Amino acid sequence: MHIDILTLFPEMFHGVMEQSIMKRATDKGAVSYQTVNFREYTENKHQKVDDYPYGGGAGLVLTPQPIFDAVEATKKKQDTQPRVILMCPQGEPYSQQKAEELSEEDHLIFLCGHYEGYDERVRQELVTDEISIGDYVLTGGELGAMVVIDSVVRLLPDVLGNERSAPEDSFSNGLLEHPHYTRPREFRGHEVPEVLLSGNHAKIEEWRHYESLKRTYFRRPDLLEDRELTDKEKAWIDQWK
Amino acid sequence: MHIDILTLFPEMFHGVMEQSIMKRATDKGAVSYQTVNFREYTENKHQKVDDYPYGGGAGLVLTPQPIFDAVEATKKKQDTQPRVILMCPQGEPYSQQKAEELSEEDHLIFLCGHYEGYDERVRQELVTDEISIGDYVLTGGELGAMVVIDSVVRLLPDVLGNERSAPEDSFSNGLLEHPHYTRPREFRGHEVPEVLLSGNHAKIEEWRHYESLKRTYFRRPDLLEDRELTDKEKAWIDQWK
Repeated sequence: MHIDILTLFPEMFHGVMEQSIMKRATDKGAVSYQTVNFREYTENKHQKVDDYPYGGGAGLVLTPQPIFDAVEATKKKQDTQPRVILMCPQGEPYSQQKAEELSEEDHLIFLCGHYEGYDERVRQELVTDEISIGDYVLTGGELGAMVVIDSVVRLLPDVLGNERSAPEDSFSNGLLEHPHYTRPREFRGHEVPEVLLSGNHAKIEEWRHYESLKRTYFRRPDLLEDRELTDKEKAWIDQWK
Repeated sequence: MHIDILTLFPEMFHGVMEQSIMKRATDKGAVSYQTVNFREYTENKHQKVDDYPYGGGAGLVLTPQPIFDAVEATKKKQDTQPRVILMCPQGEPYSQQKAEELSEEDHLIFLCGHYEGYDERVRQELVTDEISIGDYVLTGGELGAMVVIDSVVRLLPDVLGNERSAPEDSFSNGLLEHPHYTRPREFRGHEVPEVLLSGNHAKIEEWRHYESLKRTYFRRPDLLEDRELTDKEKAWIDQWK
């Protein structure tokens, strides 16, 4: 997979892209990436990328020309039909399902605005996907792009070894994860629950299932709305009501 | 505000913390921050921070000792009662309201795991808030912490000037933002809508309101569920049904 990131702040990506999962994925040849400062594509002599909005109002709007030219130059270099992803608050709420969908692609282009809005013609003509990582206000699209990239790259073949385990299980069964304990057995007066030391795997599984459902019921009841509950799960929930 | 970030990957933060809004906030003295590698607080000679889970299963679990010691050392240094925020998929879904709440604090400590789960005693004894930035799987808590930090720091007094405008307005009125246009008036055959050039402010406001509601209705109907619609809004929606 190749990833291009169009941004006015390419330096923001360095720390993240050269550590941890991204470093591993790059070292293994699973992904290559490039940051592109679209300011370099401006045709005006002051390299201005934004301008006042038609119709008035606060804030500046990114002009279409440098963004179109940067995306087109990037497409030409790779000779692919990439997904062009706009990070914005108006986008589709990001999900694990979308991460899986994007992980099947060969080429992704991320478009990150900063402070400003985007000229609507960028949306109409250039972009294939608009993504929002959540309903909160961020200064730019950069952190959102990093989030999407991390979640996609870790799904590529061979990038994760044994580490790919618990969180995926958690999401795939639709419940929040149960509590975990490791050594020491007693820490500052708090002991590991007896059942986890019992060696009785059926009981341990049942305890984990119970704790997972309980945590989901109290913290994220919305996740249970579409769930087909088993009789056992229904009985547990009656007990908490 | 002071922010401490406990992480095994402090280098991931450098690019983000030294650019854009974080740089501005630091330069203005609105915020100071420090990364703390909690591996330095391990008491075992191999500096191991994780171990196998009691009860078996895939994946490793972060042991409580280095995390407790690192948080306590950090608290002592600042002599405050900080919020201790655990970034995890089981946390409360992050929102703009939570960003506003956190922006009132003097001291935040972020705790970022990586791959592994956390020993439950960290949750029970140390943590004041658990936050999830969305229902997707990330490799660690670091990107989530950056997202929360960006959204909080931009709310601190004097950090943003005129840039703080459009996105906040959008969220505060509960609708997605209307389309923006800037120069040129015609770009690759696409013209700016006539109304935005009319100089008629009442008409421009009405067009923006209409487009905002329309975008919200088609993209994020969930945002309209709790909204008290005006008669005009109801009539518009009837037209789209």
